[in-house]
Amino acid sequence: MPGSDLKSDLWVYEYVTPWDYYAHGVTNMLRYARTEFQEMMIVETGAYGKALVLDGKWQSCTGDEFLYHEPLVQPALLQRAPARNVLILGGGEGATAREVLRWNSVKRVVMIDIDRQVVDACREHLPEMHQGAFDDPRLEVVIADALEYLDQTDHDWDVIISDLSDPIEEGPSFKLFTREYFEKTRASLTGGGVLVVQAGPVAPVEMHLHCRLASTLHSIFKHTASLTTYVPTYVSPWSFVLASDAPLDTTPNPVRIDDTLREHTRGGLRMIDGQALLGCYLLPKHLRAAIERESEVYTLAKPPKFFGHGISAASAESD
Amino acid sequence: MPGSDLKSDLWVYEYVTPWDYYAHGVTNMLRYARTEFQEMMIVETGAYGKALVLDGKWQSCTGDEFLYHEPLVQPALLQRAPARNVLILGGGEGATAREVLRWNSVKRVVMIDIDRQVVDACREHLPEMHQGAFDDPRLEVVIADALEYLDQTDHDWDVIISDLSDPIEEGPSFKLFTREYFEKTRASLTGGGVLVVQAGPVAPVEMHLHCRLASTLHSIFKHTASLTTYVPTYVSPWSFVLASDAPLDTTPNPVRIDDTLREHTRGGLRMIDGQALLGCYLLPKHLRAAIERESEVYTLAKPPKFFGHGISAASAESD
Amino acid sequence: MPGSDLKSDLWVYEYVTPWDYYAHGVTNMLRYARTEFQEMMIVETGAYGKALVLDGKWQSCTGDEFLYHEPLVQPALLQRAPARNVLILGGGEGATAREVLRWNSVKRVVMIDIDRQVVDACREHLPEMHQGAFDDPRLEVVIADALEYLDQTDHDWDVIISDLSDPIEEGPSFKLFTREYFEKTRASLTGGGVLVVQAGPVAPVEMHLHCRLASTLHSIFKHTASLTTYVPTYVSPWSFVLASDAPLDTTPNPVRIDDTLREHTRGGLRMIDGQALLGCYLLPKHLRAAIERESEVYTLAKPPKFFGHGISAASAESD
Amino acid sequence: MPGSDLKSDLWVYEYVTPWDYYAHGVTNMLRYARTEFQEMMIVETGAYGKALVLDGKWQSCTGDEFLYHEPLVQPALLQRAPARNVLILGGGEGATAREVLRWNSVKRVVMIDIDRQVVDACREHLPEMHQGAFDDPRLEVVIADALEYLDQTDHDWDVIISDLSDPIEEGPSFKLFTREYFEKTRASLTGGGVLVVQAGPVAPVEMHLHCRLASTLHSIFKHTASLTTYVPTYVSPWSFVLASDAPLDTTPNPVRIDDTLREHTRGGLRMIDGQALLGCYLLPKHLRAAIERESEVYTLAKPPKFFGHGISAASAESD
Repeated sequence: MPGSDLKSDLWVYEYVTPWDYYAHGVTNMLRYARTEFQEMMIVETGAYGKALVLDGKWQSCTGDEFLYHEPLVQPALLQRAPARNVLILGGGEGATAREVLRWNSVKRVVMIDIDRQVVDACREHLPEMHQGAFDDPRLEVVIADALEYLDQTDHDWDVIISDLSDPIEEGPSFKLFTREYFEKTRASLTGGGVLVVQAGPVAPVEMHLHCRLASTLHSIFKHTASLTTYVPTYVSPWSFVLASDAPLDTTPNPVRIDDTLREHTRGGLRMIDGQALLGCYLLPKHLRAAIERESEVYTLAKPPKFFGHGISAASAESD
Repeated sequence: MPGSDLKSDLWVYEYVTPWDYYAHGVTNMLRYARTEFQEMMIVETGAYGKALVLDGKWQSCTGDEFLYHEPLVQPALLQRAPARNVLILGGGEGATAREVLRWNSVKRVVMIDIDRQVVDACREHLPEMHQGAFDDPRLEVVIADALEYLDQTDHDWDVIISDLSDPIEEGPSFKLFTREYFEKTRASLTGGGVLVVQAGPVAPVEMHLHCRLASTLHSIFKHTASLTTYVPTYVSPWSFVLASDAPLDTTPNPVRIDDTLREHTRGGLRMIDGQALLGCYLLPKHLRAAIERESEVYTLAKPPKFFGHGISAASAESD
Repeated sequence: MPGSDLKSDLWVYEYVTPWDYYAHGVTNMLRYARTEFQEMMIVETGAYGKALVLDGKWQSCTGDEFLYHEPLVQPALLQRAPARNVLILGGGEGATAREVLRWNSVKRVVMIDIDRQVVDACREHLPEMHQGAFDDPRLEVVIADALEYLDQTDHDWDVIISDLSDPIEEGPSFKLFTREYFEKTRASLTGGGVLVVQAGPVAPVEMHLHCRLASTLHSIFKHTASLTTYVPTYVSPWSFVLASDAPLDTTPNPVRIDDTLREHTRGGLRMIDGQALLGCYLLPKHLRAAIERESEVYTLAKPPKFFGHGISAASAESD
Repeated sequence: MPGSDLKSDLWVYEYVTPWDYYAHGVTNMLRYARTEFQEMMIVETGAYGKALVLDGKWQSCTGDEFLYHEPLVQPALLQRAPARNVLILGGGEGATAREVLRWNSVKRVVMIDIDRQVVDACREHLPEMHQGAFDDPRLEVVIADALEYLDQTDHDWDVIISDLSDPIEEGPSFKLFTREYFEKTRASLTGGGVLVVQAGPVAPVEMHLHCRLASTLHSIFKHTASLTTYVPTYVSPWSFVLASDAPLDTTPNPVRIDDTLREHTRGGLRMIDGQALLGCYLLPKHLRAAIERESEVYTLAKPPKFFGHGISAASAESD
């Protein structure tokens, strides 16, 4: 019978499975739009600050986004430090770019996002996230389909960061989680370049997206590595996969990492330092076992179908 | 506009803050009771199996409880391996006892829980959790108030495990998170004995319970250490504090840990091995900083007040 | 941003459409079972007392059930006062029988319900509803399928009351809302006998069940009449259809009705008297128009498909 | 276990009591603002069309607003047909004005609303509600506090319509439900003028607002009458009170009402005609009894405190 003094009358639901959802009370709706590609909301919440929500999937929020963006970006850049050219696929909030631009060595960052309305709204309403990244002359924002862009890019990226929304059916991103697409990204990297992919939840009850992405990348690249982080608003622990044709160091020395960060970045990291980085590579036993067991590969013919519905599916259903 | 095909008409809400809650769809209600101390539910859920819920606070569920119970128990026992006598405060599900009894060296386990109805219902409905622990002759279950029990116990525990529900106001456990109580536990340990305390969430927006518990324990014991784990159904990352008057090894050697587990336990661990254990000790930078900054201490005069309401508070309010 | 101090952590959802649901906080779960036919809950709620919920559909609750059971039963009995023999189809709570037994003229009441577990649980947990009706020697409870029972009944009912749960797909009752079934009930009535059918919501956005039931009954019986009531926990206004081969008085004289009730019943009505009864027959203009427009008829080949899922459908889906 | 295919990820909650709430899935957010006086949303919902929501209280929606606005306006105007001068207090959506302007006899309508942002947003986004009323030269919109306006108005209104949001604590309207305020309205009426007040829900569990308003008006005016209607999105049945110093006809003759409407209005009514109007005056027995029993009167010293929180209360709490 215990209950709670809820402070809101407007709630964003994130459906995790058909049997659980996470509800966030909205204290201010900063932007609501149905764009060409997806439903977009920028909401202010009581517990976690401002958040970007696309097609009902919580993307990131000011209250804990650093727990996602730092371990998405820094492990990859530390593997190839000091990197010069970095390509970001997705990343509309500008926070991924912010993390890349923290490196003094970086000369050029290109960020490809399909939805101009999302990029513009984030730039306007989420300064806490991009922290001026959009004004950095090293950053070029390209509004385009990542699949098409990779066909015409100039093949010399040190690091490519795949920061795409989950591959829900009919959403704009599921093709970008397939073997065909990863082969294109491989062709766009420098010889020892690194690709990092946001790779979904790794709760005991739903680790398959991570495992199959790892398996898919392992079928193309000589070396892969899995990392995890904990972003409270994502409910489940979250994961990334690194992939490269050159070796990856998965037991980084904390002291040396701290030295590198001090030398090459302008600082400001909140979560990642040497110790925390090492922790990201140390996976629990059951997850390592699941990754090893997995052998399926995502292809365009057999792409991932993550739980959730995009706007086109929802429209179709309501006909 | 996207939505979800929800499969339930009965939902357990866990209120995280006044601005967010996590809802679990019930597919079967195995037991519902209002006991002398709290509201108790044992529910079957679609996503996470069977769960125990007390006063609206999700205690643990079969789908991910190993991510809580293994890192609660194994780090402490590994610090003092091979331990012989272990005291558990709380732990009604029997899963904490199960983890302790995995050790062949353990001769005696006493588990103190205040609520017989909870212990009996877990024994009946949650065999996946206790896995027969209640039938192990080394385990003695005592229905009592932990505070009173410690006054009369025989002062030679190698390890004491505080596995209590969160210290919500008017709930049955908040006094057991105070300096006075921890002094009693210290007096009940062998010289180099270890106390481990479940220490609440460590999301960036709510780390204070952990930090103050660490501070409180640090004011009594010579050595303390923080660990984290990630239990999806707890939403936030979760934490423990180890405390002892003898040194604690916070950078365990994975290979040696694996050897110890092989030698002294009958196996069966799902999350914890050497690598995973080391990962539990490697905290993110912002959490280490917050722990260092904290100096407040919980006392009976100034106990913790965690978000939530116990059954007595709720009754009082509804008068 | 305004919110509310919610007093419960366990909620029953009634899904009205895919875009709205009504949530009731449970303060005590008196009975939960998955019977042979349906999911059954008897819950105690803070706002509306005790309620019976079947397959996620709120049946009735102590807080407002009189607004359903009185206008279900009394208009039909007043049309044929004083009636002697009454057949109830469904009505597990015993409240429909209670209303019938209020009449001194009634000699025999048979109540057919398919689910013994529901009838037994209501008898035990909902004395406020049946008020001892199950102990009245005039009442005979038959656990059977209403369709089969009507084949063998003795054809002399003055009034037949169809008090069935909504005809959701795969639920136990949808066949009992068809022309074939209504023909059987007609054959079981005395010459001028009256059938009354609970006929679903009549909100402007979902009046079709009522209209088609009225149309279906109109295709069989010489006279039909629609009535409405308002039961807050049903969200939408609710409706009944009366059907008979003898004329129906749809503008009852309030004074004469009060006299009849005084003479033939033992009193105790809370909602219905002469004035209120007349009000039940006076429908809003748009509803009268919708009933007139409707010409479709429900048959076994084309039965109603009301929003909602029965337990069998849900199981099938989750395979 | 049955559930539902919900089509939205953004939900408006209307808290009815601390133990129940009604949730509407938003398919489009047309306007969200925190005005000087209240939180305002204009949402598009899947089930009920477009809705205006103020401080978390559902005001009205295109799907069923006619069930509120017609019985709010037409009974009062029919009591004093043909009326010439009508004052509306509140009524931001413009639908109350629409109903008044349906009368050819009406020469002047003044509508007082405190919140210009609400009026402007409704005019822009809810043309289905106002249907051009704002462009009718007979309508004058005054942005002002109703209490102050009544001090300076010219005392010759045939009908005054109080269409104010519920008197929640700290909301903008609770003072306008007191004896002092009603005395001002009385002084502003012509001799036999009629005041009609929206008077809240009349569910069996929450009829006190209606009863006390009726009692309050009865302490000032010679004649009062209660009416009810059924607006599905309000969950509970809804009520109005008419008050006048001249007699009120509470058993209108349906045929004569239909004649009057034909003669004096330009038609277009959906719910109200003679039959439906008579039905509005025929209250259920328990409600009539409750009104008769009530003797308390709302005053400025003891105003109504309806369930809910205004924006100022919520802000204060979150400090």
